[in-house]
Amino acid sequence: MTEYSSKLLEQAVDRLSRLPGIGRKTALRLCLHILKSENGEAKQLGEALMRLRDEVCYCKTCHNIADSDLCQICANPRREAELICVVEDIRDVMAIENTSQFKGRYHVLGGIISPIEGIGPSDLNIDSLIQRVQTEKIREIVMALPATIEGDTTIFYIYKKVKDSGVLVTTIARGVAVGDDLEFADEVTLGRSILNRVPFEGLTGK
Amino acid sequence: MTEYSSKLLEQAVDRLSRLPGIGRKTALRLCLHILKSENGEAKQLGEALMRLRDEVCYCKTCHNIADSDLCQICANPRREAELICVVEDIRDVMAIENTSQFKGRYHVLGGIISPIEGIGPSDLNIDSLIQRVQTEKIREIVMALPATIEGDTTIFYIYKKVKDSGVLVTTIARGVAVGDDLEFADEVTLGRSILNRVPFEGLTGK
Repeated sequence: MTEYSSKLLEQAVDRLSRLPGIGRKTALRLCLHILKSENGEAKQLGEALMRLRDEVCYCKTCHNIADSDLCQICANPRREAELICVVEDIRDVMAIENTSQFKGRYHVLGGIISPIEGIGPSDLNIDSLIQRVQTEKIREIVMALPATIEGDTTIFYIYKKVKDSGVLVTTIARGVAVGDDLEFADEVTLGRSILNRVPFEGLTGK
Repeated sequence: MTEYSSKLLEQAVDRLSRLPGIGRKTALRLCLHILKSENGEAKQLGEALMRLRDEVCYCKTCHNIADSDLCQICANPRREAELICVVEDIRDVMAIENTSQFKGRYHVLGGIISPIEGIGPSDLNIDSLIQRVQTEKIREIVMALPATIEGDTTIFYIYKKVKDSGVLVTTIARGVAVGDDLEFADEVTLGRSILNRVPFEGLTGK
């Protein structure tokens, strides 16, 4: 157990090392940097982190992170309202936005169906997606979910729920390497997989 | 430029990515973790960082990090007052404390003499060390500085300043690999180098 000789330092190291990927040595290095930094910097960092957790909102329509009830994408009249891209989490929204290839809107599920981790459809923002399909004038939903069993299960579950409403269900082209997370794909590959999306035809043989 | 769709998130990522070794992708990952964390955690992290910078003190005697005017080591009557270990910064104090081999007190220079980086003796806590040697009853000072030209220069500078006062100047045994930082040495090696410290005899041939 390291002797910090200051309770304040020990507490800061303690708190920082709870973050993923930050061990006690890294936390100490960061704390010593903060100690040497200009006075305002620690304050602004601390406040930014507290405000992030306390004041952040989620869009009531698409569940993307937002500064008010409606995110900037849903509030933008120049984004195609008839086209919805369904993603696992907000990192995927950022990844797709970075490609500048998608002009529709989003729906963030907040996860994917995973019986092993105990995540069922009711834990995700699927009901609100189905409600959007029923009430808004939606032409197409693009499934941009991971190419895993869980991703395919989630796509198939949503497909069954919405197919009677006449909406076109597509998936992004599998240009993204199978098993890779969307956020790590390069922008060209990810952008192309949005442009070359293919109609979803259900699981083969069912 | 990533589209964050939330100014709060953007600010937090911005601030975090100013820390050394934290890029924007890591900062975003940490922010998303904080978003999902329990409510109190972000607050305690933010407050710990702000208090660290605002409320931390440095020991008026040895310049170690402390919660009041005197650090826990200088305030401890069971630590040998006649033996001072001179180190570059507070990380070195922690590294030596972790070996449990040193029972004296410390003096933190806050750096070492480095003409290339423009750090001279007056930028460091050397005057207060000399004052301690003159006013306190010091028998020995152990130099635990890096085995580099800058470290040796600093040792020699201090040696010349204190040699007339009759204090014994020693250096830690060079069991630590030459060129390595103290904090990365394993505890056994570092502990042994404290026990086997050798008298300092000036630079050879001078």
